[in-house]
Amino acid sequence: MSVDAAVRRIADLPVQQLADFAQLDGERALRQGVPEVIFGERKSADQIGTLVQKLVALGQAVLVTRMDRSAEAAARAAAPQGRYDPVSRTFSAPAEGGSPPREGLVAVVCAGTTDIPVAEEACVTALAVGAEVRRLYDVGVSGLHRLLRQAPALREADAIVVCAGMEGALPSVVGGLVAKPVIAVPTSVGYGASLGGIAALLAMLNSCAANVSVVNIDNGFGAGFQAALIARQTHAGARASK
Amino acid sequence: MSVDAAVRRIADLPVQQLADFAQLDGERALRQGVPEVIFGERKSADQIGTLVQKLVALGQAVLVTRMDRSAEAAARAAAPQGRYDPVSRTFSAPAEGGSPPREGLVAVVCAGTTDIPVAEEACVTALAVGAEVRRLYDVGVSGLHRLLRQAPALREADAIVVCAGMEGALPSVVGGLVAKPVIAVPTSVGYGASLGGIAALLAMLNSCAANVSVVNIDNGFGAGFQAALIARQTHAGARASK
Amino acid sequence: MSVDAAVRRIADLPVQQLADFAQLDGERALRQGVPEVIFGERKSADQIGTLVQKLVALGQAVLVTRMDRSAEAAARAAAPQGRYDPVSRTFSAPAEGGSPPREGLVAVVCAGTTDIPVAEEACVTALAVGAEVRRLYDVGVSGLHRLLRQAPALREADAIVVCAGMEGALPSVVGGLVAKPVIAVPTSVGYGASLGGIAALLAMLNSCAANVSVVNIDNGFGAGFQAALIARQTHAGARASK
Amino acid sequence: MSVDAAVRRIADLPVQQLADFAQLDGERALRQGVPEVIFGERKSADQIGTLVQKLVALGQAVLVTRMDRSAEAAARAAAPQGRYDPVSRTFSAPAEGGSPPREGLVAVVCAGTTDIPVAEEACVTALAVGAEVRRLYDVGVSGLHRLLRQAPALREADAIVVCAGMEGALPSVVGGLVAKPVIAVPTSVGYGASLGGIAALLAMLNSCAANVSVVNIDNGFGAGFQAALIARQTHAGARASK
Amino acid sequence: MSVDAAVRRIADLPVQQLADFAQLDGERALRQGVPEVIFGERKSADQIGTLVQKLVALGQAVLVTRMDRSAEAAARAAAPQGRYDPVSRTFSAPAEGGSPPREGLVAVVCAGTTDIPVAEEACVTALAVGAEVRRLYDVGVSGLHRLLRQAPALREADAIVVCAGMEGALPSVVGGLVAKPVIAVPTSVGYGASLGGIAALLAMLNSCAANVSVVNIDNGFGAGFQAALIARQTHAGARASK
Amino acid sequence: MSVDAAVRRIADLPVQQLADFAQLDGERALRQGVPEVIFGERKSADQIGTLVQKLVALGQAVLVTRMDRSAEAAARAAAPQGRYDPVSRTFSAPAEGGSPPREGLVAVVCAGTTDIPVAEEACVTALAVGAEVRRLYDVGVSGLHRLLRQAPALREADAIVVCAGMEGALPSVVGGLVAKPVIAVPTSVGYGASLGGIAALLAMLNSCAANVSVVNIDNGFGAGFQAALIARQTHAGARASK
Amino acid sequence: MSVDAAVRRIADLPVQQLADFAQLDGERALRQGVPEVIFGERKSADQIGTLVQKLVALGQAVLVTRMDRSAEAAARAAAPQGRYDPVSRTFSAPAEGGSPPREGLVAVVCAGTTDIPVAEEACVTALAVGAEVRRLYDVGVSGLHRLLRQAPALREADAIVVCAGMEGALPSVVGGLVAKPVIAVPTSVGYGASLGGIAALLAMLNSCAANVSVVNIDNGFGAGFQAALIARQTHAGARASK
Amino acid sequence: MSVDAAVRRIADLPVQQLADFAQLDGERALRQGVPEVIFGERKSADQIGTLVQKLVALGQAVLVTRMDRSAEAAARAAAPQGRYDPVSRTFSAPAEGGSPPREGLVAVVCAGTTDIPVAEEACVTALAVGAEVRRLYDVGVSGLHRLLRQAPALREADAIVVCAGMEGALPSVVGGLVAKPVIAVPTSVGYGASLGGIAALLAMLNSCAANVSVVNIDNGFGAGFQAALIARQTHAGARASK
Repeated sequence: MSVDAAVRRIADLPVQQLADFAQLDGERALRQGVPEVIFGERKSADQIGTLVQKLVALGQAVLVTRMDRSAEAAARAAAPQGRYDPVSRTFSAPAEGGSPPREGLVAVVCAGTTDIPVAEEACVTALAVGAEVRRLYDVGVSGLHRLLRQAPALREADAIVVCAGMEGALPSVVGGLVAKPVIAVPTSVGYGASLGGIAALLAMLNSCAANVSVVNIDNGFGAGFQAALIARQTHAGARASK
Repeated sequence: MSVDAAVRRIADLPVQQLADFAQLDGERALRQGVPEVIFGERKSADQIGTLVQKLVALGQAVLVTRMDRSAEAAARAAAPQGRYDPVSRTFSAPAEGGSPPREGLVAVVCAGTTDIPVAEEACVTALAVGAEVRRLYDVGVSGLHRLLRQAPALREADAIVVCAGMEGALPSVVGGLVAKPVIAVPTSVGYGASLGGIAALLAMLNSCAANVSVVNIDNGFGAGFQAALIARQTHAGARASK
Repeated sequence: MSVDAAVRRIADLPVQQLADFAQLDGERALRQGVPEVIFGERKSADQIGTLVQKLVALGQAVLVTRMDRSAEAAARAAAPQGRYDPVSRTFSAPAEGGSPPREGLVAVVCAGTTDIPVAEEACVTALAVGAEVRRLYDVGVSGLHRLLRQAPALREADAIVVCAGMEGALPSVVGGLVAKPVIAVPTSVGYGASLGGIAALLAMLNSCAANVSVVNIDNGFGAGFQAALIARQTHAGARASK
Repeated sequence: MSVDAAVRRIADLPVQQLADFAQLDGERALRQGVPEVIFGERKSADQIGTLVQKLVALGQAVLVTRMDRSAEAAARAAAPQGRYDPVSRTFSAPAEGGSPPREGLVAVVCAGTTDIPVAEEACVTALAVGAEVRRLYDVGVSGLHRLLRQAPALREADAIVVCAGMEGALPSVVGGLVAKPVIAVPTSVGYGASLGGIAALLAMLNSCAANVSVVNIDNGFGAGFQAALIARQTHAGARASK
Repeated sequence: MSVDAAVRRIADLPVQQLADFAQLDGERALRQGVPEVIFGERKSADQIGTLVQKLVALGQAVLVTRMDRSAEAAARAAAPQGRYDPVSRTFSAPAEGGSPPREGLVAVVCAGTTDIPVAEEACVTALAVGAEVRRLYDVGVSGLHRLLRQAPALREADAIVVCAGMEGALPSVVGGLVAKPVIAVPTSVGYGASLGGIAALLAMLNSCAANVSVVNIDNGFGAGFQAALIARQTHAGARASK
Repeated sequence: MSVDAAVRRIADLPVQQLADFAQLDGERALRQGVPEVIFGERKSADQIGTLVQKLVALGQAVLVTRMDRSAEAAARAAAPQGRYDPVSRTFSAPAEGGSPPREGLVAVVCAGTTDIPVAEEACVTALAVGAEVRRLYDVGVSGLHRLLRQAPALREADAIVVCAGMEGALPSVVGGLVAKPVIAVPTSVGYGASLGGIAALLAMLNSCAANVSVVNIDNGFGAGFQAALIARQTHAGARASK
Repeated sequence: MSVDAAVRRIADLPVQQLADFAQLDGERALRQGVPEVIFGERKSADQIGTLVQKLVALGQAVLVTRMDRSAEAAARAAAPQGRYDPVSRTFSAPAEGGSPPREGLVAVVCAGTTDIPVAEEACVTALAVGAEVRRLYDVGVSGLHRLLRQAPALREADAIVVCAGMEGALPSVVGGLVAKPVIAVPTSVGYGASLGGIAALLAMLNSCAANVSVVNIDNGFGAGFQAALIARQTHAGARASK
Repeated sequence: MSVDAAVRRIADLPVQQLADFAQLDGERALRQGVPEVIFGERKSADQIGTLVQKLVALGQAVLVTRMDRSAEAAARAAAPQGRYDPVSRTFSAPAEGGSPPREGLVAVVCAGTTDIPVAEEACVTALAVGAEVRRLYDVGVSGLHRLLRQAPALREADAIVVCAGMEGALPSVVGGLVAKPVIAVPTSVGYGASLGGIAALLAMLNSCAANVSVVNIDNGFGAGFQAALIARQTHAGARASK
């Protein structure tokens, strides 16, 4: 057995942000059930077009995140049935044979309307990974009744993504209401002492609720991915054991 | 008229943390109604004793903040009827002729039991400045029902002090519940990314509630002073206009 | 009684920056006396137009903060009697039946001419909340006589907003002159080690004057709101008790 | 129905760090299946003793985190069958009728021997929440073969806690090997530019692996809690659906 | 002997970024074997043209780093046989009599495609200093097999440059695989808590591999220079001792 | 002429903090008029004793800064006529033949009593460098009349040292009152957001008064040295030109 | 005597950056010998034009700093004999009756050509304040012989301004060579870990040379002002005592 | 071939700080020529004793860094011929059959006497890795002649370690004098704005000399290791090619 084969056998690699041209096919056999994701930031339209084409050639679903509208034509040329969503700045196309049924439920919560682009990146990612999504927007902590009204809806989710900028207090409040894993996403919404989202990030890391973990500022992708992974394995356990 | 007299006439100085020996008496005539406050940190027992003695000689009430227990004997020697409170680390003694009646109500709220020393410094200060105080402790945001239950009590206050460490979310929630001025005090309770209270401080400065202003980390004194000033002038307006 | 009704009854919510479409009407009954405020940053002209229209339909006064001139047409279409102020970057329109009489006096002080946009945001907000406003501009600490000359004017205010960038020393000096609540606003005026206003923010949080509390960098809105709340309740107490 | 009852009905609160004396019993009915956890830092032996006693009186399991050895006697007096673990600095005692069977598997990975106290806090917490635990220690990234050898063991876990100080690179490597949720815990192990764990924290927040979320520095408790929650719900789904 | 001569005799100055017009010739005799390098940032096309012309007049090789495309014409006018590389943003021209043979091997490794511009600056610089270069791109830590496959290639190098953004974990892993000097270059690739490359910088400074030293963020030039210096002296030792 | 001689001829070195054993005598001829200064921090009593002995053997005046009381005996053994000042934590002894007459006047100003140790370090240093010193203590900005009263005294100085902690506003106010060079010393007096003196440092660097320059936090030595240098050269110019 | 008169009598205000319209004339009598300076940043061409006109009307010299070229026409219209310098971004015009003779010598040193704009702002300011200026450019520390060659020229200055970006080492080296007051100016030249000049600022604040004080990043104005003040008073003392 | 064998074959691991009990022997065959190094910080005397014993049993040389004197007895018991050096806080013992001859020369330079402990850690490490060492201490930049005098000695080294605290300027000056690889070590020597060594670290990362790379604050170990690796391979190349 070659070294390479040995190394590959021990690897059971999750989907990750793909930034790798030449070695793409080599990893195919190791990845199942989740689409490749292309991180679009600082990539040219040409680079994105080439990567999308490769995924299409492999019969894979496509997800490009942080993509400028200017790359839409190149992406569409490679995957004609794909669509660009300007709010979440993502491009998605289904896999050749259609996607497997979605399982598990992710709730995506956000504090204000300006947090919606990040929340939508989480939604699009969670859908691509294969979970159902429920949106609960505009439920910031300075108007608590809006959030409390949604508590029953929150309890039905298998995992919860909470996006908030400014003081970043929402994940603590949500985590205190529902005994489910909460993935907190600080957003860069704010000014001055929000320090581009650092204030919200620090607040979330210091959450007094024990069921909160955190991803990078504006990283809706990571939160949606992690939450969908949790939701799917919760439901898959249930299904598999039937 | 001398320059000095001119300068003094235009000054109408509020109580401030007093760190000044020789010029103490010169300012007496300019200050009324609020006690002098001695900032005890980094001062020796001897220095504190001397300052307390001066205030007593002037017939003034005494408040020493951030005072180590080790200075208690010196303070007591100068003001025998004073008492040291180890929780708030303050020493207080009444003015010669007793204090004027308290007016206005300050609510002092804190998130957890470890925030109590800061909250108590706020209480002791607000009482010294001449307001009534109501304590609402242990009402952190990850157990919202504890806070919601106190909403009626909060609404009766003229000004509210809110102390919280860790993610510092409580002032936003309180500010969203009650249309009164909220003075937020970040505390140094926490570890790691709480950065000694910086996380809570930033969260409070970014509060999405418009009726929140903030003081320094662990500055229960400043919050209690500002809140009592507001509460007293609210009530004094009412009283004076009768 | 429904859960929703119970939750709403306990809530007595202050005005806050409004970022919420669908639930707007539901909260109407809970808010009195102060206008809804729309936080314009990162909102499109369309979004601002829609929100203004809703407030107008409710017969409410309108205040939009941090609004680009480019949204003026949309705002005007929804509230034809409104006006845009390019200095404070606000849009205001009166309530249907006219505003109630203003009560209480807020003094707005600033250090230099480049701080004026922030100071004006404070003025416009304080007026909208229902207080009188007095402007004292260009009284920075390196030319003390300019400020000292204004001490009598400062003493007549019920609450004082002080805006300063660079070293942020002005609130301490003002707080030392007048025994009134001072709301300090650090501004982003400066360069290099001003760190976008952080230097002034830190200075203000460390003020040696006990009657100073602080809001976020460039947050004239929050300071004007808090100061007007204090000024109104001081005067309302007086009025109500007649 | 009273307001209080309404508020409580909508709340389905998870276990959280408990810092609250008087209202302890009121919340009993709302919490099931997970033990109360007492955050021991800055609490006196007396305070810890009293809290432990309350939990014992309720027939609950006990977990105290960040507890100094000096509080052991007080904790033991209240819960004689409990034990103090000096490595993780925790005190645990079983519930009256014994604990329910553990379900779901959490792998706890750490980079070096100095990270073990944090890793052990995660283990003790995950066990208390009701999951099985597998320890994989001393597998830092500068000796990759040690980690690669453990890949099969990692793949069997339902959720993975990864503790690392210094450059904090381990969670990215683990996240790239196994398609399971990874909860990363930066530790304060390091010196100089590790900034007390901030370097590791930032590294983890910027992980290029999409299945990594992060908790506060040295927060083994939070990571163990979140991971056990995920592991249990994955397994419970499986069990419930049988 | 003049003071100036004395000072110059003791100096044996390495190539450094050249920012100095008038004194250029004076230093010629002190520098051998390595080309002058012009730091192009914030320099006008005219300034760059003049500096290139001086080097050409001295018969020297030319390397300009961080040069905008807009200065290409001016550089070309001065050194017609030079070429501009838009990826690394460098301009290079050979010395009059051709370059001496390259000796020593530098491996340049990078984590993702967006790190390539920095890696290419390192390559161009190492070539200019006189070493051979081998590129190993797109071998980030979340797909370890890609890197492991390259271990034999890495072992042949005399010095290794490793460029990585985001969590900056790659140098630790490379340093653990190969007992050669590793020069780590944090890149500004990332967003939010990457803080413009600070997260990667801190991670690299805290590397648990002992054979890693670090240069400034995006400083491919410095890393390529240092690595080529090491590679050349390793090989020159070998050659000289034959 | 040797290289060494050439290098030394061009050097006209000012007094600096001396941390150098073996080469002490070699520099003697190059330094006139100002005493050597020994930086005592992290030096053992033995090391300090040896350095003091060397200076005494050279007939020099002695100044040791940041010296613990525990080194007093060793310093005294080497320089029996020296004295240790516990407030400024300095040890001083006169030169063999007595000191030259002092010339020029340095005013040392401080905001509060807790700033006095830093101010005293400035005074002791300025005296050692050969200037006269005038102390103006306890004149913080929140009680302006105390400072204004001292304006005539300030105007007589040739250079002014201003020490302040917390918000660090005093140098701006002093700089605005007197057209003399002001050397600002931030002190570490404060807590929380004073960040160990960083807040005061930033404020001073952003001073709106143009005649303010700044030294490190708590660096009374550097400020006293720089101010005395200015004061002496101002006076020496006057004297020399008679 | 009025309060205002009293306050003004005690004030002997230095030139400062002028940002104040209405009160300009009131301060005229208090300022002599140095021109008013207008801080141009964030001021419109109109505002600058008006301020220049006021100074011209008063017969004053004019200096505008940090002025965009776009305001040149407005400035020229108000002061036709003035000129704009695009390198230092300043506008200067002589006083009505010509300037008094310059006295005292300021040396302005800079490390690299990209520091020249800041160095030139220092030069223009020092000239305006009334000192002679000597420029010593391009003498960075990595080519020491360039600086050593200039030591004799440095020794003739009364005060030295040293501008450097990147590692900010030059002031320490200059301060070690010449026993004169050194005013260090960190510049924002650099990238990555230079943090916009913070690295150089910190280095300068920690200088091991005792005759170095520091101003804000890129603050050539402040350094030139402080140095010229020192140079003039050194020389004036000499002159006056003749 | 087993997976494990495959992984191990591709690994050619350098010496690294060893923190790993159970797997120690497994790695023996992969490491040659350099001693294992034990990172002593936060390890108990017992843990250190056990690790030393293992190395001795393997016939290896021993190096323990950052070891408290309190662990000396335990280390000595395990390696009786070892010695503890209290300056560098290291414990060393030779390998069973004696060490191989040293080759290559490392110069270790430091700025002041308080930097010596870090410099000595570099020396001890470089000796253990197998290079010769030359010490050049007390040559800080504010007394340049001390350093210039050493230039010939510096030129003979194959690699240079430069340790400096405070402003961290020394590596730039050394790098400008000698065309050899310079490994810079910022030290935590300083106070206030030195930020525990961060100021020196930033300065070194921004060095204008191209032959400087940097390790963590106070990391004499890493610098000595990297420099010795370079020195040895330079010399080994020469030797091998004979």
